[in-house]
Amino acid sequence: MSPLDRLTHELSKLPGIGQKTALRLALHILRQPSEYVHALSESLVEAVEKIRFCSSCFHLTECDPCPICTDARRNRQMVCVIEESSDLLAIERTREFRGIYHVLQGALSPLDGVGPENLRIRELLDRLRANEIREVILATNPDVTGDATALYISKIIKPLEIKVTRLAAGIPVGGNIEYIDHLTLARALESRREY
Amino acid sequence: MSPLDRLTHELSKLPGIGQKTALRLALHILRQPSEYVHALSESLVEAVEKIRFCSSCFHLTECDPCPICTDARRNRQMVCVIEESSDLLAIERTREFRGIYHVLQGALSPLDGVGPENLRIRELLDRLRANEIREVILATNPDVTGDATALYISKIIKPLEIKVTRLAAGIPVGGNIEYIDHLTLARALESRREY
Repeated sequence: MSPLDRLTHELSKLPGIGQKTALRLALHILRQPSEYVHALSESLVEAVEKIRFCSSCFHLTECDPCPICTDARRNRQMVCVIEESSDLLAIERTREFRGIYHVLQGALSPLDGVGPENLRIRELLDRLRANEIREVILATNPDVTGDATALYISKIIKPLEIKVTRLAAGIPVGGNIEYIDHLTLARALESRREY
Repeated sequence: MSPLDRLTHELSKLPGIGQKTALRLALHILRQPSEYVHALSESLVEAVEKIRFCSSCFHLTECDPCPICTDARRNRQMVCVIEESSDLLAIERTREFRGIYHVLQGALSPLDGVGPENLRIRELLDRLRANEIREVILATNPDVTGDATALYISKIIKPLEIKVTRLAAGIPVGGNIEYIDHLTLARALESRREY
């Protein structure tokens, strides 16, 4: 395999990047100064070698436990449960949440062979039992697998008598009632609040 | 900058990849086995170190001159002029062309500061003068810059008395007259052929 074919082949394994895009990226990369290509190459190796999972919240981190888990200014009585590290980063960008997190590393999906034992649910229960936690915010995605995961976790947490909340689902801010899908609109109606 | 931020930053420099996609790619990469990441990293360095431009046709190649220029079965009297190596690869995939190529490495675009001296036009003239070439196929893109480039080259080749042709522009095979843009439809009408 030629170096160009090999690079195209490796790039095409990335999500959302097919053969054509991979070739376009490879040709673009070959037009760049070699410093850029070396920087990209090194950042790949550095990321994979330095980043691991936090043993407490299972977010990606360089040091274990992660900076969020060790941040003394954070409210340790509130745990936000999310599916993936990318969800954590999205919530952090809102600057609205000052509690701590628990990354499940997926959502329940029996069809894909993902059961409770494949997620970090036992570790969540251990944390809830070992620490004084007042509220668990279930921030899994508002879709079939995320809803099922939230329902499952809410049930197994029940005996611990901790307040369990779920992220609100509804029409996005700036959204348009005319064009919103009917499932979202139904959910927004069902979850209507008093004015 | 954390390794994750650095990887995201480097990935976001690729064409068509913004901050969000770069982060998504970076998180995906971190979930892969480290063998994949090392393979990708090595293929980047290998590509940039081994691939250069053919000194004859300016296509990307590992050995100079490139395999197409040295292929004895190819018709050296026909030169297909294209903008980029990716265009060459696209034409090769048709398996219809058995001549040789000349990669201009761009198209004339005065607004972007790309004049004839920035393209491999002088090298094309040198090739046409030094070799016995019967036909030059101008296969630049059928857009403003590609058309301007083809027109410019056709004029400077004229004194050499070589046959100059241009790739046909028209409705794509499988296209739909109703939905085709009017410029393409106008060109298809203008270039109509006798049945």
